[in-house]
Amino acid sequence: MKSLIECIPNVSEGRRDDVVASLADAAVRAGRGVLLLDRTSDRDHNRSVFTFLGDGPGLLDAMTALVEASLAAIDLRSHRGAHPRLGAVDVVPFVPIRGATPADCVSLARQLGTRLAERFSLPVYLYEEAASAPERQNLANIRKGEFEGLAAKMKEPAWKPDFGPSSPHPSGGATVVGARAPLIAYNINLGTADLAVADRIAKAIRHLSGGYRFVKAMGVKLEARGQVQVSINMTNFEKTPLHRVFETVRSEAERHGVAVVGSEVVGLVPNAALLAAAAHYLRLEADPSPQVLENKLLDLAFTAQGE
Amino acid sequence: MKSLIECIPNVSEGRRDDVVASLADAAVRAGRGVLLLDRTSDRDHNRSVFTFLGDGPGLLDAMTALVEASLAAIDLRSHRGAHPRLGAVDVVPFVPIRGATPADCVSLARQLGTRLAERFSLPVYLYEEAASAPERQNLANIRKGEFEGLAAKMKEPAWKPDFGPSSPHPSGGATVVGARAPLIAYNINLGTADLAVADRIAKAIRHLSGGYRFVKAMGVKLEARGQVQVSINMTNFEKTPLHRVFETVRSEAERHGVAVVGSEVVGLVPNAALLAAAAHYLRLEADPSPQVLENKLLDLAFTAQGE
Repeated sequence: MKSLIECIPNVSEGRRDDVVASLADAAVRAGRGVLLLDRTSDRDHNRSVFTFLGDGPGLLDAMTALVEASLAAIDLRSHRGAHPRLGAVDVVPFVPIRGATPADCVSLARQLGTRLAERFSLPVYLYEEAASAPERQNLANIRKGEFEGLAAKMKEPAWKPDFGPSSPHPSGGATVVGARAPLIAYNINLGTADLAVADRIAKAIRHLSGGYRFVKAMGVKLEARGQVQVSINMTNFEKTPLHRVFETVRSEAERHGVAVVGSEVVGLVPNAALLAAAAHYLRLEADPSPQVLENKLLDLAFTAQGE
Repeated sequence: MKSLIECIPNVSEGRRDDVVASLADAAVRAGRGVLLLDRTSDRDHNRSVFTFLGDGPGLLDAMTALVEASLAAIDLRSHRGAHPRLGAVDVVPFVPIRGATPADCVSLARQLGTRLAERFSLPVYLYEEAASAPERQNLANIRKGEFEGLAAKMKEPAWKPDFGPSSPHPSGGATVVGARAPLIAYNINLGTADLAVADRIAKAIRHLSGGYRFVKAMGVKLEARGQVQVSINMTNFEKTPLHRVFETVRSEAERHGVAVVGSEVVGLVPNAALLAAAAHYLRLEADPSPQVLENKLLDLAFTAQGE
C-alpha cells in the first residue's frame, strides 16, 4: 500500500449491534485492502464510530458500500440519541496518516461526495479542509438544526448542499464529508446527574465561547449511568493537549463540588497525544517519543517495506 | 528476522563521545542485522547505555566486538563517575521482545559469557534470570565493592566468576551478563544539591529497604546541574508502575521541602509504561493500548511480514 489514509465514518446507530457489524462488513468487503481498525458504539449517543485504514480508491469503495447499507438499515425519522446528527451516515472524515497529504484527502472527500449524490440522491456537505465556504468549515454549523430542521435549512441559499438535491434524503438526511487533521474524541464523566454542570463546563473549555482554540465540547446526559459527560472533540492535540483540557475540566467541576469520575477516548488516538500527557504529569524533561521502543520498531517495519 | 531480542550493554565511558560512537560502530559492523536503536551518555555517571536490536547470533557477534573495542579504549584504573561499576563493559542484559523466550535469552547470556572468557580472559558473572545462584540474581550484590574491591572479592569461593579467571582483567575488571524482563531506567531530579535527601527518598522507594517490590534506587549527585537525582531501575513496570513511584518521590521530597524539578527516561521505554501513566492521571476508564493508532499499525506491519 503506497499511501495510508484513515477514514472515520460516524453512523447514527449505536444500539443494534448486528446492524453495526453488518455495516462494517459491507465496507471491508467492498474496499480492496481496507482494514477495520476499530468500531465503538454508544447506546446513549445511539451512534457508532468506525475507523478504517486504506488507500484512496479502497476507501472510496468502502464508504460507498457503507452508505448504501446504512441507508437501507437506518431511518432517522425514528432515531433518538443524545448526540446531534444530520444523517444516517452523519460524518465521513478522511485523515492523512503516512504517504498522503491533506490535499489528497480533500480530493477524496470531493470524489466521495459526487458519488454519493449520484448513486443515492443523497445531499452532501463538505466540511473542514474540504469546505466550500468558511461557514461550512465547522461541523457544528452544518449540523445545527439537526435532521429535524434539515428540510427548512436546505431551502436557504447559504445552505444548498455541495452535492446532490436540495432536499433531505427521506430516511437518511444528509451526509457531511471532509478532510481534517487527526481528531480525538474524548469524554470526561462527572459524578452528577445535573446536565447544567456539564453544559457550563463545556462552555468554559470550548473555543466558541471563550475556551481553548482547538476544543469543541458539549454536555451530554448519560441516562444509563445516571451521570453527565463533557463530550469533547480535540481538533489539534499538539496545540491544545488532552491533559490541559482535563485539568481545566477538573478545576471547573470542583468549583461546582463535582468530581471527575473518569474519562474515555472514543475510537482511536494517536500515541503522541497520550505520551504528551504522561510527559506532563511525570515532568519529563524531554519528549519521550524517540525513546519509545515501539516507535523504533514501527520505523523499522515501514522502512523494511520500502515505503 | 525470526526473533527480536533487545540487548542493552552499559559501558563505563560517558564523556569521550568519539570513543562511545566507535564502540557502537564496532558492534553494528560485527553483528549481522543488528540495529542500534539508542545511545545515551551521561557525563556525571561517566557511563553510556546502548540499545541494540537483533537476533541471537547477530547480537553475540556484536557484543563480542563491543567488548573487544571497550577493553582497548577504557581503563577502569583511571575511571571516575557517580554510577557504581565493575567493568569497562559493566553489564550486558538480553531482553526478549518478539518471537523469543526468556530461556532463549538465558542461553544467549551463557554463550556470550563463554566466549568473552575464552577470547579476552575476562571474568564474567551471570545475573537475573541467567544467574547460577540466588545471591547472584541481584546486580547490586555482584557489583558491591566495585572495580576497586574486585580482586579481593573474587578470592572468596562464593564470588568465583561463572566464566573466566578468578582475577580481574587489569584494565577492564569483570562483566556481568544476563537475561531479564524489560527494565526502565528512570531518574527523578530534585531541586536541591543535598545528596542526603536523594538518598533518603531512594531508601523510601526501593524494595531492599521497605519500598516497592520492583524498584531499585539510589541517590546520585549531578555536579554539572548542582542538583541531586533519585536514580531508579524499574524491574517490572506492570506491577510497580512509573506514576506510582513518581508520586511517592514527589510526596517524600515535599516532606523535605524539596521540589521535583523533572524526570527522565534513560534509553528506551516500552510504550505501555507511559500509556499507563497517561491513563492514571487522565483517569481513563479503560486501558488505552487497544485504541492507540500506532499499535494497530504495528500489529499490521508484523502480520504482513508473516512472523
